[in-house]
Amino acid sequence: MRMTIQNAWILNVGTEVVMGVVVNTNGSWLARKLTSIGYRVDRIIVVPDSKKDVVEEVRRALSRGVRVLIVTGGLGPTYDDNTSSFIAEAINRRMILNAEAYKMVSEKYKAMEQEMTPPREKQAWMPEGSIPIPNPVGTAPGFVIEVDGTIIVCLPGVPREMKRMFEDYVEKRLRELSEMRVVDEWFVIEGVEESSIASIIEAKAKEHPEVYVKTHPTVLENGGFRIRVQVTAAGRSEEEAKQKALEVALDIRKALEEAGVRCRTGQ
Amino acid sequence: MRMTIQNAWILNVGTEVVMGVVVNTNGSWLARKLTSIGYRVDRIIVVPDSKKDVVEEVRRALSRGVRVLIVTGGLGPTYDDNTSSFIAEAINRRMILNAEAYKMVSEKYKAMEQEMTPPREKQAWMPEGSIPIPNPVGTAPGFVIEVDGTIIVCLPGVPREMKRMFEDYVEKRLRELSEMRVVDEWFVIEGVEESSIASIIEAKAKEHPEVYVKTHPTVLENGGFRIRVQVTAAGRSEEEAKQKALEVALDIRKALEEAGVRCRTGQ
Repeated sequence: MRMTIQNAWILNVGTEVVMGVVVNTNGSWLARKLTSIGYRVDRIIVVPDSKKDVVEEVRRALSRGVRVLIVTGGLGPTYDDNTSSFIAEAINRRMILNAEAYKMVSEKYKAMEQEMTPPREKQAWMPEGSIPIPNPVGTAPGFVIEVDGTIIVCLPGVPREMKRMFEDYVEKRLRELSEMRVVDEWFVIEGVEESSIASIIEAKAKEHPEVYVKTHPTVLENGGFRIRVQVTAAGRSEEEAKQKALEVALDIRKALEEAGVRCRTGQ
Repeated sequence: MRMTIQNAWILNVGTEVVMGVVVNTNGSWLARKLTSIGYRVDRIIVVPDSKKDVVEEVRRALSRGVRVLIVTGGLGPTYDDNTSSFIAEAINRRMILNAEAYKMVSEKYKAMEQEMTPPREKQAWMPEGSIPIPNPVGTAPGFVIEVDGTIIVCLPGVPREMKRMFEDYVEKRLRELSEMRVVDEWFVIEGVEESSIASIIEAKAKEHPEVYVKTHPTVLENGGFRIRVQVTAAGRSEEEAKQKALEVALDIRKALEEAGVRCRTGQ
């Protein structure tokens, strides 16, 4: 996709994810969100709860000048939740007890009639200079910190908490920063095999280098073929992006239909 | 997990995955498989269909001396399926028409009563020195190539094809290479919040550094808490691993029950 668009990396921290115990739905959900508000996601990386690995990937993102780095996982109270201190190390900041975050966390446990203990307090320790992100549905706050032009957003790994916090506190700010919107158009081809239409799709994709064209083939139960075609365009507004995607989708459908391939609207 | 275990990286290639249109179930499925046959997965990385990004990640895996690198996606007939040539570039090999792979591909299209066209033939081009992997359920073969002690296994991105090819042709060989087996034991704690048991779990995990202990908290519909505890151990055989995991799980349960926390068997 050749667009003047800001880039983002997603870093999901969790030994349970690299072990395959948990599917990385957080990565896909964030990728979809970031794409729709105008970012180009260049990496989704899963690493174990390990200092060496987290530090390596955070520093790599910074050295690449990535605009937004979203990190999820490892913010909870247990001994293997250490993502905040790994990030602090990667960006050379001290870990401090963030007063605002401490208030958030202690109020949570107070409401549950639970005492503050060191593992619970740990959730309020953050790299110096972080802005805490409230967690309306769990105990661990997230945080945002900007380092050399890269905005690092750190969120819990529990999907329900991560999604809520992204939607309530992160999305709006990232949307304002991004000047682009991205919209998909889809259509469906049935009864032909992917390689039969490859050259038509290729020619059209080359004709419209500013849009992203992707064929998603499936083999049906009865042995027949279905190809879902995705046309993704960016624009300064949703309307502009939608119009561009629609225009190119119609142009591709026209070329396919002229070659005797039947298309229908749908996803 | 401090074990004498070989490591693996998973590289999933697909712009549709970094855009969040497709959830990376391939990554998790492979991670689970590799873990169970005795590998420690250090990375699951998703990159777009882009030469720069694929070359960077393949070279990084090689420079780290990763034992096994599994690459999925981008082997099909369409113009954006170029993973084979990106890998060839990363490992400094020429792309050649692999005679064995050509036979596999041409027989597939013959059976479908379709001609060989350049996009179809492309699926038989591989880095020089590759061993093709048959695809019993699709058109694109995979391949294996060993470079400086790293075994690179390249498979299609279509989950049905990837899984079948891994199970039929890859798993057995990797299992033979690995000298370890890994087994999980699970139990469940209900009615307490994660931070209440954090210190007990931490102490026990430190006492048994050779096993991996992980708590997976969930908040139930009625507002109650459930914590699933995973204890993963490795051994020279499945029996040895199972015994170790069971022993540590029982030791943790004992410590929890002595502190008044009720546990039950289950996952």
